[in-house]
Formats: sequence, structure tokens, C-alpha cells
Amino acid sequence: MTDFGVFFGRADQLLDPGFRGEPDIRSVEPASATVPVFDLGLLRGDGVFEATTIVDDVPLAWHLHVRRLAQSAAALDLPAPNLPAVEAFVHAAIRLMGPTAHAHLKLVITRGADATLSAVSVPTEPTVFAIVDPAFGRKSPEIAIATLERELLRDSAQRAPWLLLGAKTLSYAANMAARREFERRGAQNAVFVTRDGYVLEGPQASVALREGDRVVTPHPRIGILHGTTQIELFAWAALSGLEIGYEDIAVERLLSADRVWMMGASFVQSVTAVDGRPIAHDLADADVVNAFMQTERAAIDAWTRAHVPG
Amino acid sequence: MTDFGVFFGRADQLLDPGFRGEPDIRSVEPASATVPVFDLGLLRGDGVFEATTIVDDVPLAWHLHVRRLAQSAAALDLPAPNLPAVEAFVHAAIRLMGPTAHAHLKLVITRGADATLSAVSVPTEPTVFAIVDPAFGRKSPEIAIATLERELLRDSAQRAPWLLLGAKTLSYAANMAARREFERRGAQNAVFVTRDGYVLEGPQASVALREGDRVVTPHPRIGILHGTTQIELFAWAALSGLEIGYEDIAVERLLSADRVWMMGASFVQSVTAVDGRPIAHDLADADVVNAFMQTERAAIDAWTRAHVPG
Repeated sequence: MTDFGVFFGRADQLLDPGFRGEPDIRSVEPASATVPVFDLGLLRGDGVFEATTIVDDVPLAWHLHVRRLAQSAAALDLPAPNLPAVEAFVHAAIRLMGPTAHAHLKLVITRGADATLSAVSVPTEPTVFAIVDPAFGRKSPEIAIATLERELLRDSAQRAPWLLLGAKTLSYAANMAARREFERRGAQNAVFVTRDGYVLEGPQASVALREGDRVVTPHPRIGILHGTTQIELFAWAALSGLEIGYEDIAVERLLSADRVWMMGASFVQSVTAVDGRPIAHDLADADVVNAFMQTERAAIDAWTRAHVPG
Repeated sequence: MTDFGVFFGRADQLLDPGFRGEPDIRSVEPASATVPVFDLGLLRGDGVFEATTIVDDVPLAWHLHVRRLAQSAAALDLPAPNLPAVEAFVHAAIRLMGPTAHAHLKLVITRGADATLSAVSVPTEPTVFAIVDPAFGRKSPEIAIATLERELLRDSAQRAPWLLLGAKTLSYAANMAARREFERRGAQNAVFVTRDGYVLEGPQASVALREGDRVVTPHPRIGILHGTTQIELFAWAALSGLEIGYEDIAVERLLSADRVWMMGASFVQSVTAVDGRPIAHDLADADVVNAFMQTERAAIDAWTRAHVPG
């Protein structure tokens, strides 16, 4: 049996801005780790999450993840996470796992059961738990991608914040459907594109282009997650003397770029083809970035702390 | 304590097209009714549901709900529900509840735990359960509504089926955010509108207009749920000698219509204002429809069976 870890936290500590001290953590046997059927995370996909890679007991770029977790919670009008307490909770989970060379960590915060259900004796405060998966597999270094219509326009996220376009929520059914669609097309990933022809993101990954000495990625205001690995890529690029930029990227530029990369979990994949059309690519270039991401954590953390607002 | 009922079914019966006979049903104490944290219904909002009103032990218009359940499951590439078995399961749940004058029923099918997790001793087949809530409250008969941008265009659902626009999924976080938005605006409901100015649906309700002797509602192909109560409204309209039509409805028509109704759970609400502008309305008209929906179930069932495809 794979040695998963499941750890529950307390909303009255992790989501209380006034809480100080070490948060409680409860390790639960994976086979019996459950949430009530009344949890709105289940019934409504109403919750947020973050996921990262753990390397040698360190959750990579965790400060970027908690920053985005707070943004996602705000978008959903959930209580604000107490970030030091959440960070302490995650480190406690890693300690309880025992020495962990390489694993995947997911942290979930749901809205909890409908408040009108308190009569059912089900707790109605938010549910907070973490899953640690030490069997997390490596992704393919080279991939062909498909473009998939997301049908929004490039200003949609600004016009309709209730669509939660920049929040990392549990409502991922369409992302899962998009995965099945790119698999049907024989691709290994996809990028969504707006109706007016701009690049967004993958169903579970960010995308960036290298064009000459510039590395560019879609601006988060277009309605995408601000990818933590994308920020780490920018750290590599900036520290390597390249220009970096957030901008609206017309989909045609995927075909003319010198390199197209997709990324997540501190790993960059080299894109070899878009919708069946081969594009310029070189696995060695992605290998350079991935080697940097593995070995230069201190430099990445320093750069990202200095260059990311909030 | 409110007398909720929670009932679990078996995927190998309810989602097996070859299953015959009476499906197993397991009643679980609400306070201890749970799903594994690994369930993709929780982690990804990856599942479908249906909800209806139970009146005198009868789940209203249930044949319309199971039809849509099958369509939603197909959109998500879930196993096809065995509709007679699902119907038997729901009736068994109602029997186990005991005499039920008025209640709310929700049926949920999730994708179950990630298949790669079978090593965790967590079942990976879909999760099927029903919740029966006898304390389900009545909705307000008159409401003011807001219009909220949904940002899609009227052909978006046809162009991008992976967005699951016509499927009733567990990924409802944006619908819940839209609810909070219309409440902030002092409204009691909302209708989403496309970027090109067409009416869609509410976050949890359908919308229809009466214009002279015609009752019209947005065509489901625009990317909305085919509302079961909307179909029941059409049964009332057709049996009352009115014309009915599915069409693309420009948002301006909400202001000029003779009546605007929002509906769900076999109940029609009379809309009195749109974005703060009063519109023509008459509660007595909605009362007529609601009385018909309560008393003419046989006529409604006969009409809807004859006039709804599938």
C-alpha cells in the first residue's frame, strides 16, 4: 500500500487571523479519512486548494502558494487563512510523514457544511486537510499540446469577478473534461484560448514562451491562475539575464516562438507541437531550467520574495 | 434535530446498464455520513447531481430529472446511469424516510476516488448517494433580480463542449459566488447574460418570459441546463392554450415582457424588478401556475413525457 498521509487541521486556528502558536494537526488513516456528505466542498465544489512538490522535506515555493491561497479564499469570500499557522500546519504534516525525498502535497480548504445544517450535528465551519502522496510520478519532459476554446474574452475576468477565473477552486470538472479532450486528440496537455485569440493557461498548468531574449507569459489579469512554477521560471530567466514580461499573447505566437514551455509543480515541460503542427523546441533548454529549479532553491526563493507583490 | 435522510447506493448496480432487480440501499446516520477525502467529487467537483421536490412521497417530474442526469453523466464521460435502477433507488430512499409530505431530494453521483489510488484501499468506483431534507423551506413568491455577466457568447456551448455548460455538475463555486453577488446588490436572484446580450439562466434557476400569448425561455443549446420546472411551466402553458418557444432572448426583453418568471423545484417566482428597474408583474399569475403545478401532476407528467425528447 502506498504510504499516503492525510492530515486534518482546525478552522478555528488556521482561518483565525488572531491565532498564535502551533496549530493542532490530526493524522488520519487514509482508508478512513473522510468528509461529511454535507460538505459544500463536495456538494458545490465550494472551496480552494493549493498543491506543490515536496523535495527533501521542503514544500517548494510555499510562500507563493500561501499567497495564492489567500487570494483564492478572498475571491470565494471564505475566511482569510492565517498564513503562518497554515505554514506551520504544512510543516507539521511533513514532519509526521517522516523523511520524504519526493512527494506531492495538496492542501484543501472547503466552506464546510451548509450553515443551515447545524441541526444535523455536522460541523459547519470550513474543512481543512492536507494529502501527502509520496508516490507522485514524474511528468513527461516533452509534450505535444492542443489549443482548446475557453470562449471568454480577454477582459472577461475583470468584468465578471463572480466567475472566479483567477481562483484555484475545487470546481475543476471542466478542467478534467478538457484533459479528456486533449487526450482524445492525442496530445499530452492543452492551453485554453480566449474567443478573441489570446493564450490563457492549461487545465492544470501554466504556459510561457521564449522569444529571443524574452520570456513571456499571459498576464494573470486575463483570468488565469498566477502560476507558482511560472514565477519560478521568471526567477530563472531574470537571474539568467533574460527579459521577462506579463502580456496578452496572441495564440499565433505559440507557433512562432523559439520555445514554448508548460509548467507546474516546479517542473517545466518542452512543447514540441501545437495542434499537430511541430514547433521549435529543444529539450536541453528545458533541462537547464529544471536543473536550476532543483538546485537553486535559495536563489529562487530570494528572487520570488523580492519580485512578487503581497 | 432535523430529520435528514442519507442513503448510499452501489455504483455496480446503479451505473451498470445490465443490472436488473431491486438495487441495494444503505441508510446512514446523517452525522456520520461521509465520503473519502480522495473522492474526486470533493477534490475536483467531478460529478453530477439532480434535485427535486418530494410531495406526498412523489419526487416531482422525476422522469425529467433522470433524463438530465443521464445527459450530465455523458457530458462528463461518467458511466451511464441505469435509469430504472436509479428510479428504484430513489423510491426506496423515500420509503425509508417514512411518510413525507414535503421534502427536498438531492441525488449525487461522483467519479469516486482517483483510480490510481486503489492502493490506498479506497474504493475507486463512483460514489452514489441521496440526501432527503424534510425541512426544505419555501421560496419567496416575488423577487427582484440582477443580471450578471457570464461572458460567453451564444454559440460558446456548441464550440466548447468541454466547458460542460449544459451539465449539472458538482462544480458550482461560481454559481455560489454569483449568489453572493446578487445578494450584495440587494436582489433575490440573478440571470446570467452572454457577452453578446442574451439571457441564459440563474445560478440555480431557470428563467422564462410571457409576451402576449407566448411563453418563451432560452434554448438549452445556448449553454444552460434544460430546466425541469421550465418544462413543467411549458406543460401548463401548452395545456392553457398558450404558445411556447425555445429561442435566443435578448436581455432587453426582460424589461418589456408582460411577465418574467424564475423557477426551480416545481415552483415559479414572479420577478418584480430587473437591475433595480420595476417591470410588469402580477403575483396572481404566478399563483395560477403554482397551483397548477401542485394539483395537476398527472397532466404535467403526461404532457412532459409526450413532448420531451429522450
